[in-house]
Amino acid sequence: MLNKEPASRVMMMPRDTNPAGTIFGGVILSYLDQAGAEGAHKCGAQQVVTIAMKEVVFHEPVFVGDLVSFYTEIVRVGRTSVTVKVTVEAARRWSRSEIVKVTEAEITYVNVNPEGRPVPIPRTHVDVLEATPDGL
Amino acid sequence: MLNKEPASRVMMMPRDTNPAGTIFGGVILSYLDQAGAEGAHKCGAQQVVTIAMKEVVFHEPVFVGDLVSFYTEIVRVGRTSVTVKVTVEAARRWSRSEIVKVTEAEITYVNVNPEGRPVPIPRTHVDVLEATPDGL
Amino acid sequence: MLNKEPASRVMMMPRDTNPAGTIFGGVILSYLDQAGAEGAHKCGAQQVVTIAMKEVVFHEPVFVGDLVSFYTEIVRVGRTSVTVKVTVEAARRWSRSEIVKVTEAEITYVNVNPEGRPVPIPRTHVDVLEATPDGL
Amino acid sequence: MLNKEPASRVMMMPRDTNPAGTIFGGVILSYLDQAGAEGAHKCGAQQVVTIAMKEVVFHEPVFVGDLVSFYTEIVRVGRTSVTVKVTVEAARRWSRSEIVKVTEAEITYVNVNPEGRPVPIPRTHVDVLEATPDGL
Amino acid sequence: MLNKEPASRVMMMPRDTNPAGTIFGGVILSYLDQAGAEGAHKCGAQQVVTIAMKEVVFHEPVFVGDLVSFYTEIVRVGRTSVTVKVTVEAARRWSRSEIVKVTEAEITYVNVNPEGRPVPIPRTHVDVLEATPDGL
Amino acid sequence: MLNKEPASRVMMMPRDTNPAGTIFGGVILSYLDQAGAEGAHKCGAQQVVTIAMKEVVFHEPVFVGDLVSFYTEIVRVGRTSVTVKVTVEAARRWSRSEIVKVTEAEITYVNVNPEGRPVPIPRTHVDVLEATPDGL
Repeated sequence: MLNKEPASRVMMMPRDTNPAGTIFGGVILSYLDQAGAEGAHKCGAQQVVTIAMKEVVFHEPVFVGDLVSFYTEIVRVGRTSVTVKVTVEAARRWSRSEIVKVTEAEITYVNVNPEGRPVPIPRTHVDVLEATPDGL
Repeated sequence: MLNKEPASRVMMMPRDTNPAGTIFGGVILSYLDQAGAEGAHKCGAQQVVTIAMKEVVFHEPVFVGDLVSFYTEIVRVGRTSVTVKVTVEAARRWSRSEIVKVTEAEITYVNVNPEGRPVPIPRTHVDVLEATPDGL
Repeated sequence: MLNKEPASRVMMMPRDTNPAGTIFGGVILSYLDQAGAEGAHKCGAQQVVTIAMKEVVFHEPVFVGDLVSFYTEIVRVGRTSVTVKVTVEAARRWSRSEIVKVTEAEITYVNVNPEGRPVPIPRTHVDVLEATPDGL
Repeated sequence: MLNKEPASRVMMMPRDTNPAGTIFGGVILSYLDQAGAEGAHKCGAQQVVTIAMKEVVFHEPVFVGDLVSFYTEIVRVGRTSVTVKVTVEAARRWSRSEIVKVTEAEITYVNVNPEGRPVPIPRTHVDVLEATPDGL
Repeated sequence: MLNKEPASRVMMMPRDTNPAGTIFGGVILSYLDQAGAEGAHKCGAQQVVTIAMKEVVFHEPVFVGDLVSFYTEIVRVGRTSVTVKVTVEAARRWSRSEIVKVTEAEITYVNVNPEGRPVPIPRTHVDVLEATPDGL
Repeated sequence: MLNKEPASRVMMMPRDTNPAGTIFGGVILSYLDQAGAEGAHKCGAQQVVTIAMKEVVFHEPVFVGDLVSFYTEIVRVGRTSVTVKVTVEAARRWSRSEIVKVTEAEITYVNVNPEGRPVPIPRTHVDVLEATPDGL
């Protein structure tokens, strides 16, 4: 169920750098969280809060001018929660055909109502997912 | 040659709003310019400056929480310039399956060297483009 | 009816740069949209949405430290819409007396009510404008 | 020597608010410092650092959508320093003809070289100023 | 009554710089205002507006990567207002043990209700303060 | 070795919100990464890159106006890497004495030279740490 279309894709700007001149890790983590939420929305959730993010390992630094893409894959859909795997890739500034994997993360979101309380994720979406071989 | 993959895709946040509470037009124009530059890069340009943007008509407002995608299409490749058409679509916050066309624009970029002077776009890319039926 | 006082004037900061180190075109387009809206307000409009921006040609790059001014001129006032011409000038960082024209644009705004529907622009303002020789 | 043209003029956006919903005082102080530096540049200084800001009293709150203007007046020009008085006015969102004085401040800047050491302000500018009746 | 714990502490990032490459004075003034408000909150105020800032003298520039701390001390508590002294220190990027005093300021805040009108600061807090030797 | 002084402390502003109106998780993750790097600096590292972040669980949402503190504790110091535990607490806007634990994370940083290659952490700092009872 890997989604070939990016949940988000952004070019890194000078304002996103840390004192060392590379892209600030917090900027990547911000987009990562946003992209995962987007995956949860595609899965039927309507308003989500982030509950947990599994271990994140950074394989490569990101540079100003890189085009960074965030791909999502649904890992598990529960009654009120969704776990999304986000893969982050950077197309380098000096050559868009040089693409490196920056990191990946598994993030769990809970679907909430306007008061912030957990509510079930609408069934139609879950049905489709339950039909997959690995019984998600 | 419409590129089905977005050149950029971002979720609109509260900090992107204007005093009326909808997304500030300048935010959309910023991403539009960036996405077009991305299209020029894919076409072989290495560092570009924006030269001109043809008329832009806004068909729909954009709201906080909308997921906005920017698709590019190469319109013309000259010796040192590239013209890119950017189409902007918003997937609404209340339903990601409700997608509206926000605007589209044709932007011309010039490929420049580090001193900012126009330089030819590397041939390999242009060759491929010239081979297309519509003779770009 | 050229307004000698700027609708907006701002100094360009490092956070406004693109990966090439000059000012990101999107930043200029953002201020341009904002300045035009300001012109529409001066003309009687109360809350506006941007409808269209005619072709924009960039004559000169803008640098960090430049002081950029946006001047507006009313082009046309309709029942619910206003078209504003915005001229953008940069006073260079190394000498405020060296002023270059960066670009100009004609932007059309529609006056809307809080629900976002077009509403007539209050007459007093229009009257004054209609009295001008070129019958706007 | 009050400068009728604003040293800077900006519209207040939602991202400039504090938790109470009005414009964050720090945003006004930021523009105030920038506008004063602009005044120092007009006076011949080339790169300045802020040395001191005399007491600032806030007379009126500023709201989202207000158009805020910063006017400068040269108070004193020394060998390496310039003192600038900045007056801040807000044109209200609901009526641009309702203009209130928000605050005013006297800021002293020192002209520095690229290493940050004080350097004399070029004479031509100082000469003109010294010729004014109040002997600045 | 000097508060040894910082009211706020932040690392300076590239996006906080001015055209000269050091930290923009307005950024420091913004955090200064925010830290002082925090001091007022600790003192019992609930929602505050900034009324006045006494003279501020900048002793040292601040650089990208510096860790800047804002310490507060209550100077005076009135019926509806609180005056807070904020001391700003920077731990240098090249050595966190090299700490310099950047500036200090006395800021007065007024406690307001949601409509922005001055309201008394709850007594419990004031009582504690009145018990101090210097009769604040 | 828990550090009672915060590595960073910031007030949450409206520009930090997500479309649901609470503080965007990415903002917290950004400050978390920055605070951990600060912990690594205190431990002798000079310029660090983030290598990995262990699982992060969010216990409580954060609101506009909350004062958020990040406390660090050194978990392990290797030859070129440092692992820092960051604990995040929010003092609520409506009462600074109501403090909740938002999350905690273990982040590993590598000390690098200006070219981005791992370099040993200066010994003086490590020695002190090795002398602690738990043999870090």
